[in-house]
Amino acid sequence: MTVKRIQPGPIMSGAVVHGNTVYLSGQVGNGDDVTAQAKDCLAKVDALLKEAGTDKSRILQTLVYLKDMSNFAEMNAVWKAWVDPENTPARATSQAELAAPHILVEFTVTAAID
Amino acid sequence: MTVKRIQPGPIMSGAVVHGNTVYLSGQVGNGDDVTAQAKDCLAKVDALLKEAGTDKSRILQTLVYLKDMSNFAEMNAVWKAWVDPENTPARATSQAELAAPHILVEFTVTAAID
Amino acid sequence: MTVKRIQPGPIMSGAVVHGNTVYLSGQVGNGDDVTAQAKDCLAKVDALLKEAGTDKSRILQTLVYLKDMSNFAEMNAVWKAWVDPENTPARATSQAELAAPHILVEFTVTAAID
Repeated sequence: MTVKRIQPGPIMSGAVVHGNTVYLSGQVGNGDDVTAQAKDCLAKVDALLKEAGTDKSRILQTLVYLKDMSNFAEMNAVWKAWVDPENTPARATSQAELAAPHILVEFTVTAAID
Repeated sequence: MTVKRIQPGPIMSGAVVHGNTVYLSGQVGNGDDVTAQAKDCLAKVDALLKEAGTDKSRILQTLVYLKDMSNFAEMNAVWKAWVDPENTPARATSQAELAAPHILVEFTVTAAID
Repeated sequence: MTVKRIQPGPIMSGAVVHGNTVYLSGQVGNGDDVTAQAKDCLAKVDALLKEAGTDKSRILQTLVYLKDMSNFAEMNAVWKAWVDPENTPARATSQAELAAPHILVEFTVTAAID
């Protein structure tokens, strides 16, 4: 079964396609608050899914990391406006410090291609 | 390859089936301590796996989040009594604050269907 | 689709093969610092992948937990020296306390077999 790497780099690839499944790297975004960062993250998710030949209506599972769980409702509002309401994925959210102190939220997505 | 959503909601689905694999949302439970909550979580996992047409003997991977790692042995005792000893999954456990302060443990499960 | 368990134990298996995919348990390692522990973790990953009939050039996704994000660059240096630069996986890194206080890093790997 073929493995195809999208936006490959020396440390990680933006996404990896295996058969009918694509695994995305954790996406972080720019912005001064969770709303701005989450929107930017999810735009990057859209772009990677498109490059893999799929879209957000085919997401299977998403792991969400929040630097501060007090931003849960704010993250969720962006998520709810973005996600396909007829095709919501499995999801788990936990609080975690991320790669740099200014990073407030990170989304790690697995999606179906066919 | 078909994608089927189980217990779909506007933010997430309870589980998502893709081909021969089912991805569950992180399951949290009711109860005053880790033992009670873990039992409740795993009963919800059983119910979702059943609805997907599979059971705990087919779990592939489980991510466990614990609010306080000092409860590791207590969580593990519930897990060990529940899991199919002949068919234990891959597992990783980390400490994390969860969506609400009273949530002590969360299990995110991926399982085989066929 | 067959499920095969590698290094099975009463609580978890070292890895679980499902069709063309293998899910590894979170790997921790011995050593006094992140460099030593990460090298030991990744040697265990190599061994499990070999037992599953694959290798690091086929890794799809890796979740990295770091006890202290200030060790990110040190972890990354070990990772970069180890990973196949032509075949880097999707990856997400978060900070988390792990099962015991001396554990500084944990890698959870999913890989393709065919």
